[in-house]
Amino acid sequence: MNDCVFCLIVAGAAPATKVYEDDAVCAFLDIRPVTRGHTLVVPKAHADELEDLDPELGAEVFRVGHRLARAVRRGGLAGDGANLVVNDGTAAFQTVGHVHLHVVPRKHGDKLSFAKGFLLRRAHEPKATAAAIRAGLAELDSEGAQ
Amino acid sequence: MNDCVFCLIVAGAAPATKVYEDDAVCAFLDIRPVTRGHTLVVPKAHADELEDLDPELGAEVFRVGHRLARAVRRGGLAGDGANLVVNDGTAAFQTVGHVHLHVVPRKHGDKLSFAKGFLLRRAHEPKATAAAIRAGLAELDSEGAQ
Repeated sequence: MNDCVFCLIVAGAAPATKVYEDDAVCAFLDIRPVTRGHTLVVPKAHADELEDLDPELGAEVFRVGHRLARAVRRGGLAGDGANLVVNDGTAAFQTVGHVHLHVVPRKHGDKLSFAKGFLLRRAHEPKATAAAIRAGLAELDSEGAQ
Repeated sequence: MNDCVFCLIVAGAAPATKVYEDDAVCAFLDIRPVTRGHTLVVPKAHADELEDLDPELGAEVFRVGHRLARAVRRGGLAGDGANLVVNDGTAAFQTVGHVHLHVVPRKHGDKLSFAKGFLLRRAHEPKATAAAIRAGLAELDSEGAQ
């Protein structure tokens, strides 16, 4: 066990509102969301940057991000799209040294609140938000999507 | 053949500076780069949004983006990192209706030129830039990386 906060979250040793988890990947709410439902997808195995990340594991992280991007168009969030972002390296604004994919739900006409979210980054009822994302994932399941 | 500009590029029917291509995926320079080496990775099969994209193909797109993010730290660009971004849906600033992953090379201390790049988005010697990226990919190959 190292002192990486995302490794601690993966291990259940630091608090986080998880929305999805499998053997390789964990997804939880960003504690400073840009928009409601802003989620981080991380590989469970520690990797500082993409340089250190196994390509298969990277593909798994994206697969989960892709699924979350579809989930937030459903369920309680009912969004119109999402930004999926990996900031790789401190030069690219990476702030936690454990690879993470941001999934930032978007709605039509949210440009101003999106910009405001960048500045304020305040939490939005994490329990209800996580439930809304899980509902979207369940909706995808019921559609028989992969 | 539809009139999607990225489908035309994939088919070789519209001009682009390609840096990588395989059976499933094609990568070419953004004609309005935010930074030098700004590349777009697209699935060859048309998909408007992530909603329409096969998850396996999405994973392939990311795998190529991951590799390009590593390549631009090498070769002629010798960057310090990269932003990898999928804007999914017009609500999320998607401007071409064919899924694409941006790979935007970054350097330490480039915040001002990065911001300027967002505003100006001018091309940076595409031939030399593409050669620099290909050199990075070749360097990765010679390292025996996947």
